[in-house]
Formats: sequence, C-alpha cells, structure tokens
Amino acid sequence: MTTKAAPFHRVITDSETSLHAEDFHFHHTDIDLKTQGHWSIQKHTLHGGKQEGVELIEIDNGKLKFAVIPTRGMSIYKVWCGDVSLGWKSPVDEIVNPAFINLESRGGLGWLDGFNEMMVRCGVEFAGHPGEDDDGRMLTLHGKIGNIPASKVEIIVDDKPPYRIRIRGRVDEKTFKFSDYELWTEISTVPGSNSFQVSDTLTNKSDYEREYQIIYHGNFSQPLLEEGSKFVAAIKEVSPFNDDAANEIKTWATYFGPTKDYGETVFTIIPYADKNGDTDTMLHNADGDRGVAVSFNINELPYLTLWKNTDTLKEGYVTGIEPGSGFPYNKSVERKAGRVPTLRPGKSQSFSLEYTVLLSSDEVKARESSIKKIQGSRKTKVNKTPVQ
Amino acid sequence: MTTKAAPFHRVITDSETSLHAEDFHFHHTDIDLKTQGHWSIQKHTLHGGKQEGVELIEIDNGKLKFAVIPTRGMSIYKVWCGDVSLGWKSPVDEIVNPAFINLESRGGLGWLDGFNEMMVRCGVEFAGHPGEDDDGRMLTLHGKIGNIPASKVEIIVDDKPPYRIRIRGRVDEKTFKFSDYELWTEISTVPGSNSFQVSDTLTNKSDYEREYQIIYHGNFSQPLLEEGSKFVAAIKEVSPFNDDAANEIKTWATYFGPTKDYGETVFTIIPYADKNGDTDTMLHNADGDRGVAVSFNINELPYLTLWKNTDTLKEGYVTGIEPGSGFPYNKSVERKAGRVPTLRPGKSQSFSLEYTVLLSSDEVKARESSIKKIQGSRKTKVNKTPVQ
Amino acid sequence: MTTKAAPFHRVITDSETSLHAEDFHFHHTDIDLKTQGHWSIQKHTLHGGKQEGVELIEIDNGKLKFAVIPTRGMSIYKVWCGDVSLGWKSPVDEIVNPAFINLESRGGLGWLDGFNEMMVRCGVEFAGHPGEDDDGRMLTLHGKIGNIPASKVEIIVDDKPPYRIRIRGRVDEKTFKFSDYELWTEISTVPGSNSFQVSDTLTNKSDYEREYQIIYHGNFSQPLLEEGSKFVAAIKEVSPFNDDAANEIKTWATYFGPTKDYGETVFTIIPYADKNGDTDTMLHNADGDRGVAVSFNINELPYLTLWKNTDTLKEGYVTGIEPGSGFPYNKSVERKAGRVPTLRPGKSQSFSLEYTVLLSSDEVKARESSIKKIQGSRKTKVNKTPVQ
Repeated sequence: MTTKAAPFHRVITDSETSLHAEDFHFHHTDIDLKTQGHWSIQKHTLHGGKQEGVELIEIDNGKLKFAVIPTRGMSIYKVWCGDVSLGWKSPVDEIVNPAFINLESRGGLGWLDGFNEMMVRCGVEFAGHPGEDDDGRMLTLHGKIGNIPASKVEIIVDDKPPYRIRIRGRVDEKTFKFSDYELWTEISTVPGSNSFQVSDTLTNKSDYEREYQIIYHGNFSQPLLEEGSKFVAAIKEVSPFNDDAANEIKTWATYFGPTKDYGETVFTIIPYADKNGDTDTMLHNADGDRGVAVSFNINELPYLTLWKNTDTLKEGYVTGIEPGSGFPYNKSVERKAGRVPTLRPGKSQSFSLEYTVLLSSDEVKARESSIKKIQGSRKTKVNKTPVQ
Repeated sequence: MTTKAAPFHRVITDSETSLHAEDFHFHHTDIDLKTQGHWSIQKHTLHGGKQEGVELIEIDNGKLKFAVIPTRGMSIYKVWCGDVSLGWKSPVDEIVNPAFINLESRGGLGWLDGFNEMMVRCGVEFAGHPGEDDDGRMLTLHGKIGNIPASKVEIIVDDKPPYRIRIRGRVDEKTFKFSDYELWTEISTVPGSNSFQVSDTLTNKSDYEREYQIIYHGNFSQPLLEEGSKFVAAIKEVSPFNDDAANEIKTWATYFGPTKDYGETVFTIIPYADKNGDTDTMLHNADGDRGVAVSFNINELPYLTLWKNTDTLKEGYVTGIEPGSGFPYNKSVERKAGRVPTLRPGKSQSFSLEYTVLLSSDEVKARESSIKKIQGSRKTKVNKTPVQ
Repeated sequence: MTTKAAPFHRVITDSETSLHAEDFHFHHTDIDLKTQGHWSIQKHTLHGGKQEGVELIEIDNGKLKFAVIPTRGMSIYKVWCGDVSLGWKSPVDEIVNPAFINLESRGGLGWLDGFNEMMVRCGVEFAGHPGEDDDGRMLTLHGKIGNIPASKVEIIVDDKPPYRIRIRGRVDEKTFKFSDYELWTEISTVPGSNSFQVSDTLTNKSDYEREYQIIYHGNFSQPLLEEGSKFVAAIKEVSPFNDDAANEIKTWATYFGPTKDYGETVFTIIPYADKNGDTDTMLHNADGDRGVAVSFNINELPYLTLWKNTDTLKEGYVTGIEPGSGFPYNKSVERKAGRVPTLRPGKSQSFSLEYTVLLSSDEVKARESSIKKIQGSRKTKVNKTPVQ
C-alpha cells in the first residue's frame, strides 16, 4: 500500500470494473494523515469448510477493533474493546459463504445455517419470520440482504479531525420484476474511540413504489450478558412477542444466566425518543461496570425488538437488540399492523446507529441517566399478551 | 499466447483434465492465418458481488463484438456493432455466478435473480413457466441450462476463408435417474461481418428416450426498441399468450415506448418458412434504419414467442424474440399440446440461429423483402384469445 | 514438501486458521520413515463446469489407490487396486462443488445432482428418503453431510509399523437451534496393502440430546458387478424395501447384468455378527475370483441395506452395500421403527469399516468361509413383504 494524498480513499472491490484487492494490511503510518492512535486495516480471504472464499476486513482504531464481512452483506462479525467483546458464539462457527446457504431450506429457515454475526441486517424486500405472504409467496427468515456479497467496497479515512475511518459497502438486492434495492452501508469509527457507527442508505432504484423491511440484528453475549444483566431503554410500550414470552413479562428486562431448555423469548418495544427522534438503549452486566449502548433514531427505525436467547453457552447464549422498521413477525402480519414502510421510485431512506462499548460503572451510569432523561416522566405500558 | 499452426484450436476449459486458462488476450496477429480484419479474443474473470468468479469471453471480429459467459451456460451477455447494441439493461446488473442462484426461490422464479443476458437458452429437461408437472414435481422457470457452468470451452479459428471464429462450449445437464443431456454450443462469427451464428447440438446420452424443451431467449432494447419499432416475420398463426395480451392483439407487432405499469405481454407464433424450413424474423426501429434479424429453421425450432416487456427503462425495457421447441407455458400444458419433443437414446438434435445487425434502411428493407417472400401469399391467422 | 520428523503430520486445510494448502505431490522418499513400498499423496484443485474449485486428494499406497474429496464431505471418489476398481460410472461425471447443489430441488432429490462417489456418507441430522418428518419439516434425500466441505483436513503417517497413512477430515453439520455435529472422518491404508479403513467419530457438540442417522453408501460396479455376481453376508433377516423388490426376493443376493428398464431394487438386512459385533459382507464377480469385502461392527452400524441398481451401464450400473444406523426409509418411518439413535450432549459414536479388494479365487473363498463362520448354524429369515 502506498501513501496517498488525503483524504484517503481506496476502492477494494468493485463489480463494475471487476476490481478485487488481494489480502492487505496497512497502518496509520502508511498514509499521510495526522490521525491519532495506532490504527490499522487489514483484509483476509478465508479458507476451509463453508468459509472458502469469504472476505473479511479487520479495522483496529487503536482502542476498538471490529471485523466486517463484505461477502455476507457487510455484516459485522465481532467487536473487541478492552476486556469487552461484542458478538456471540454460535454453534455455527465458520463465516459461511452464501454460496453454501440455501435460504429456502427447513421451510425457510436456511438463514440459521450462517447466523453468527455481532450485527446482521435483516431485509430488505422482506424480513422477519418465514411463511406465506399475502400473495401466497413463501418468504424466508430475515430475508436475503445478509447473504448477498457486497458489490462495491471502499475504505475512506477523513482528512480532517476526528479522522474518521469508514468502511463502505454497497449491497444490491435485485430481482427482475420484483426488487431493485441498493443498500449503501457504512461502518465507521474514530481512532482511539470506544464506539462505531452504522450509517446506511437504502435506495429504491425501481420506477415503482416498493415496500421494504429492515432490522438491525445486533447480538451480545458474555461478558456483558450474564445472570443479572439488564436491558435499559426509554420505552412507551413493551409486549411479549408470543405466549412463551408472556410468561416472563414481569422480568422481561433482566437476564438469566445460561439456562438449559430456556430456548428464547422475544419482546417487542415501541421506544420513546428525544425531540429529534434520537433514542438510546443499553445492555449492562450484573455489576453495572461494563455495557454496550445502542443508539438510533425512531424516525428511521421506530420499532425495537429484544431477543433473549439465554440458553446454554454451547447453544448460543445471546441477546439481540434489534431496532427496525417493524417487528420480526411475518411480513403479512407486519403489513396488516401498518409496520411495512414503502419507498417511492428513486427515493432513499437512511438509517444511523451508534454502538458504544461502556468500560466503567461511570460510563454505565452516565448512559443510564441519559436514557432516563429521554423517558422523563412518560409512562411505560407493559402488555401482558402479544400485540401484533 | 504463442503462434499455432492453422487451424487454430485452443481448449480453455476442460473439466475432464481440469484444464483452466487464466485471463488472456490475443489478436489476429498472434496466429498465423490470413484472416481479414483486426479481430481479437479475450477472457476475464469477474469479481465483486454475485459475479465473483464468473468467466467472460469477449470476441471482437473487427466490426461486431460480443461477450459469452461460460459460467452461465454459454449465454451471450451483450453484442455491439456500429451504433447498435443487442441486449438490454436489467435491474440485475451483475453477471451472477450460479453458485448464488437458487432456482427454486419465490416458488420457482429464482431464474429472475440472474436474468440479464442478450441470449439465454431455456431448457433442456424443462423450460417455460414454473409450476407442477403432471407427476407432481415442481418445475422452475426456464429450467437449469442457463445456470450451469460449461464443462468444456474451446476456441477455433478456421484455417480456410472466411476464417470463421468459433467459441464452443459443452454444457452438461445431468441428474442421476432423471437426465443425461449434453449441449454442445457454438457461437461463431466471420471477421468483419455484422452477424453471428448459434449452432448447438443437444444429445440425449441416456439409454432412455427423454423429453426436452429448448427456447432461445434473445432480448433486445434500445436503440432498436422504441416507440414505433416493429416486429416482422412470416407468420401462419399468432395468438395472445394470456388475457393481458389478448387486449393488444390488434397492435401486437408494434411497440410502445417505455411505459410505466405496462408490465409485459406475450404472443405465441407459428412461423412460415421456405421449402428448407428456414425462416427469418426482424425487429427494426421506428425510422426503419436500424434492426436485428433472427433467422432459424422451423424443422428444428417450430415455435416462436414474442415477449414485449415495454415497461420503463429502469424496470427493463426489452422485447424477446424466442424461437423454441414449444411455447413458454408450463411443461404440462406443452405436453398436452404436443409441443414437447423427445430424443431417443444417444440421439442428437441440432439448432442453428443467425443474428444479423442491420445498420441501414437498405439492409432493413432487404430483410423485409426476404421475409415477405417467405410469407408469399399465405394467410396469417390472428387469434383473439389464447390457444394453448 | 520438506522432510519432517516422524510421525509425519501435515494439516492441509483448517478453517480456524484459514490454512489452505495449494496443490502438492509428495512421495514416500520425501519423509524420513522406513515405510514399505512406493506410496505417494497428491492434492489437486479441479476446474471446469460444476467441479470448479473442488479439492481432491489422491493416495497411492503402492498397491491400492484411492481419491478423497474434502469438498464433498470427505467422500471417497474411486478406488483402484490391480485390475479391480471400486466405484461406478454415474451419468453425473463431474465431482460437483456443493455450491452448485440445491438439496431441496425436485422435492428433496437435489442430492442426485452430485451422486457419483464410491462411498458417500448419508446423514447426519437425517438420512434416507425425502419427505415430511413428524414435525412437518421437509427432509431431503440422504441429508447434508455429503455436500459439506471439510473444515479441517490433515495427513498423518504413523512412525511405527505398519506405517499406516491416514487422511483425516472434520466435517461440521451445524445449524443454530437445530444441530451441532462434528464428524471426524479418517480414511487410512497400510502401504502395500489391498484394503483401506474408514474410522469416523460423530460428536454431538450440543447441550441437548440429538437424534442422528448415518448410512455408509458404498457403491460398486464393473468389474465386480456383472451377471451372476453374488452378495454374501451373515444374515439374520432380509426383507424387500418395497413392492418392487418383493418380486425379486427369491434371487435377492444375485445380480443381473446391465438391464434396461430394471431401475432399482432395495433389500433391508439385519446382519449377524461375531461375539465382538464384527461382521463381514462381500460382493464377488460371477467367476468368484474378484471381489470386495465390506466389514463393519453391528454395535455401531446394526443395519445393512443392499441397493441393486442393475440398470444399463450409461444409467449407472451399480450396487450399494450400505451399513447404517438404520434403513433408508424416511426418518419418520425409521423413528417409529426404533431405528433412529440419539447422542447425548458431548457424546460421541465411532464407526469403523474396512473395505478389502479381493484379487483371487482364494481370497474370495477365504472371505466366504469367514462369513459362513459368522453365520454358523443360525437361520436366515427371508421376508416376502416389506418390514418397515
């Protein structure tokens, strides 16, 4: 890698020009920017098993490190910061090339053959549970976007403070007669910080108005998830997703330790936000000295799903904090409930999220305060039965 | 590439010997033949998105240029000649590796995830619309052959005038207990000419008689397709494919400009031919000074389908001229109508088509005359309702 | 390849470290062991058609040669020894990359698009015929394990006599919420011998007890299979698999020559074994001077299926000797019959088989004697109708 004039901009994949960068590794010293810290970016191609040919980009901002998977829709594989890691350990331990995935298998549950990311987008033509849509078509779990290789990937380092490092990727979800979506994803971080942002823009390139669904399926396990961990958010309304969850509605915001035969419970949440629509959520450990905050805007992502899969460690001990355009019911249910937005021809919708690793009780407390400030004196309605 | 004794013959892919040529580029000067013009052949491997690993061969005969996709059943991606291009712009803008295609998705419409070629063969165990066959088996849209990588690919340049350049590829469609077809494809062109030929041979390698279906799905858009473009053919009988098309039967041979909410109409045609079975069709622009002729033999391909997808440019403004062994109804319908031929054990059937780019009003008029000559005084029956 | 201290141990694929060895070829002289014979091991990557990217390892023990396919679940492609070969000629003549296989196609028969191995394992979450399981889920023919690329592959040569050469591969069958199996396979041979062993260990890595099914689908054709060939085993009970087979129950253990319209017949067998559970089976030619013995242990694999597909040579003239955890009925049938074993959390089950090529009438006779000895005076029950 040679030194480039600022701002640094490198295209590493481009299907239009068939450009394809080999494995590389470069450091902050390789480019002529006055950035802070000892950051670096590297790219690998994985081999063996079902991960044959998968590309992985690792970004180390000097304090926080994360890995992005262009081959799997620009999902985030894992994040490391201090003694905290984000993500989880799935029984699926390879990063699976979509060439080996059949989304239609097991009655539309094929997505589970590759599910192990810290953050995977669900969507965008459809998301949520598999099953027949109103037109009789079979929809598969959580849609296609997480199993589509990125068509263009680029790295940008801003030439002005705070010298943000941006990994951008375009994921195309296109079928003649059905869909023509472009999802520009961006995952970025400031050198030396303990947070990263997701800034995506979904564009309907079609001449027809089209529905979309998107869920940011962010997943967390140890050390943040343990017995006594808590989920904190500014909440207007919370409901059990189904009858299983209804039994746990009283303790929905706290967690069990790894629990055999727990399976999963899911809760649907309508969040409150500040006057700009910004809201904040947090998962913190039992001691309240480590956590992760997930911030988003309810004008972009008005719904939030909490997935509590506190089964055993080997089965996948994990909780999902999932801001979305709707809940993960089948699209036919979501449509009836008015939770399937549309995009007019040529129009775009942006989605911004920030994930911050909290490394002390002070940081956890400060975040708790700011979430309480959003809630203010507004009430939380707790429904005892599912509200589809 | 080194100089070779004539005739030039180079195998670039062969699954039997695991031979696999890397990207190359060679010119007429590289081989010792007294050919005309400045022709060249190059091969690329594509990268990025769903086109990762797709191989593409580009042939420039000095006047006409075309690109063949070995990875997608030897389909023709696009053709360029003077100010005319053949092919179309699909919302699917990558050349999709079949590894990322699931033909069964959307109830058998997965083929649409990769459809963007100038010419794709449909078949050969089955073609046409998805749905249940008589035996209860689900058939997928337009079959498998367009999503099977070629097992053997070779380039031949004749050592005698007119020094025809031939790209040959063998595509195997084989399933234990069900099918054992070999389709030898050949796309060829004479240096300096404005036409190319498709000369395929389908062989039933099985010991059992087997049905086959084949449709040559040739697709055209701007600049040949525009408001007022016309389709010309020698026709015995033309029918609307379905009720939608029935409304347009009076103007079936002329085209609209890009039209929002048009969707598509389809017409089924039984062509007339000369005493040798040769027939000719043409699409020309509104001014009648640019066109494409598609010639074939009705002893090989007795049926013709005209697909008019004059929707908006972004949705795919395109018309298909589709000579075939039958029409694109589901195989169960085709079988009942007697339009599903069979091949006895070891037997072969050849299919030859010629595509000629017409670059002047003289060339368009000459072709119109020759088509009228085929029709002669024979009547055309226009059916107002579908005739399955 | 450099000389290594004994025992020789080389990891050639490892998805954990992304290790991936290129094509190689090494001989007994390359390592410092006092082994017998002129053995060698080589690895190729295949190209062309649907075998693009498939890895193949060929082991020649100086007398017997076999090829293993890491990309297809460590299946054995073919075996050669003297003038005998094991395996068969399927209409599917390429070694198909699972990326091009859709197991769900044709109502769950997609497995047939890649079936051509000498030995393919069926399983492990499910095996046998496609169809709905008791929970309404669609199961596909013979499961997934034969179409999963190995995640770790290693070669070991023992440093003590008889200097056994071992090709070991780990195949992971893992789906979040459904399965977490690790299958460590080993195929090994002693230099200069005419046999090889399969020694597999299946581990349930899940925290839950899980069912499994496994069938070792070993396939044989000419020169061992011909008119008058015989299958020999120590048998407690033999039954026709279905009504077709019922018609042939009297001659179930002898074979026809290649027979048009034969299709296939299948017989289910409960074998006898010696006091250690070891049993032995044999297929020999009409003259009784060439054969193959398949030995296994009924404590590991209590059931045996004989598949007689003596159709024409081109259609696949082949017989399958298939020791298994059960018969190849749909899993719902097998469960009801008590033939679906389970593995408790963390537990493993081993499976050992030996395949021996018999090269003389003495060897065939000796094997017949040892099989008769296992049978002893015990009776064989021949059922005239299927016993599910």
